[in-house]
Amino acid sequence: MTTAEVQCHTTHGYTPEKTAYLRRLKLIEGQVRGIARMVEEDQYCIDVLTQVAAATSALKAVSLGLLNDHLAHCVADAARKGGPEADEKLDEAMQAIKRLVK
Amino acid sequence: MTTAEVQCHTTHGYTPEKTAYLRRLKLIEGQVRGIARMVEEDQYCIDVLTQVAAATSALKAVSLGLLNDHLAHCVADAARKGGPEADEKLDEAMQAIKRLVK
Amino acid sequence: MTTAEVQCHTTHGYTPEKTAYLRRLKLIEGQVRGIARMVEEDQYCIDVLTQVAAATSALKAVSLGLLNDHLAHCVADAARKGGPEADEKLDEAMQAIKRLVK
Amino acid sequence: MTTAEVQCHTTHGYTPEKTAYLRRLKLIEGQVRGIARMVEEDQYCIDVLTQVAAATSALKAVSLGLLNDHLAHCVADAARKGGPEADEKLDEAMQAIKRLVK
Repeated sequence: MTTAEVQCHTTHGYTPEKTAYLRRLKLIEGQVRGIARMVEEDQYCIDVLTQVAAATSALKAVSLGLLNDHLAHCVADAARKGGPEADEKLDEAMQAIKRLVK
Repeated sequence: MTTAEVQCHTTHGYTPEKTAYLRRLKLIEGQVRGIARMVEEDQYCIDVLTQVAAATSALKAVSLGLLNDHLAHCVADAARKGGPEADEKLDEAMQAIKRLVK
Repeated sequence: MTTAEVQCHTTHGYTPEKTAYLRRLKLIEGQVRGIARMVEEDQYCIDVLTQVAAATSALKAVSLGLLNDHLAHCVADAARKGGPEADEKLDEAMQAIKRLVK
Repeated sequence: MTTAEVQCHTTHGYTPEKTAYLRRLKLIEGQVRGIARMVEEDQYCIDVLTQVAAATSALKAVSLGLLNDHLAHCVADAARKGGPEADEKLDEAMQAIKRLVK
């Protein structure tokens, strides 16, 4: 872990956002378990697909939330400090955005 | 549930595909639990995002598999029988594809 | 080109759908030209991005339309005839759907 | 246009990036025209879909490039200055990312 990453972390700490993310991930875990149950019970494919789409959307929403927090804290902090680290943080964030867009 | 859906179901039954889907969904459930643990432990945002992207891709792969099975069985059966049900099944599949593409 | 593709083609011919697709593609071409003009005039990035997103959505809508027609004609015809060609057509359509979903 | 937007603009000016974007958009315009020609000539649906997917990918790549430039210049500048404008720029960029991810 680089110094930059450590600095990013210390700005996180215990936050209301963290609790909200954990709750959302718990819900998604339940959705995935529900999908398995639907498959187990041979429920209609299209209904299963609808639930998979809902879980996928929920995961994407989590990604967008995490990305927003990351840009607002780590990337913005790096931009304020400037130097090569600012570019590095931006490149890293862009790679994450590309994975999201695919 | 319409007669068409029931007919689709009876062609499913216990299949090796079903076992494979259940295993894949179990893995995705574990991935989501792992993401929650990463958030809990304040791991680096970008690493969390990478795992969320992996879980999202895995869910999309499940969707594509289910869609393939659905087109190969229910939609193809309906096409062979013809009539309004064939159109209905296709429309329904297209709606599912649209949700996937978004 | 295989016999199957030729058969698919002959069912197309001149259709009102074709005229509609050509009109939509003309509009998209104009959108792309408009985006180039915005870049040329140094318009605000976010406004350019909004227009790129609109053109991307319009292209996706064309894809979904073409896919719908393809499933309703070529893939359904192949399903009715059965045999290896039915599987082939479905695989080919699934590959196209995968490219769309990415 | 707000003062912030004007400031963003003045940092653009004539750049090698601009020339590259214009060339890429020209190519995409040609791709879209090629797709129209394929539809006109009743070419095989799947081949048309492949070209539509290629044009869509090319547009997405332009979006990611523009977004990268925007984050590296406008959003980073705003972050350095701080204040409400920094939050505003980030929110605006996140909205653009959401449109891309959909």
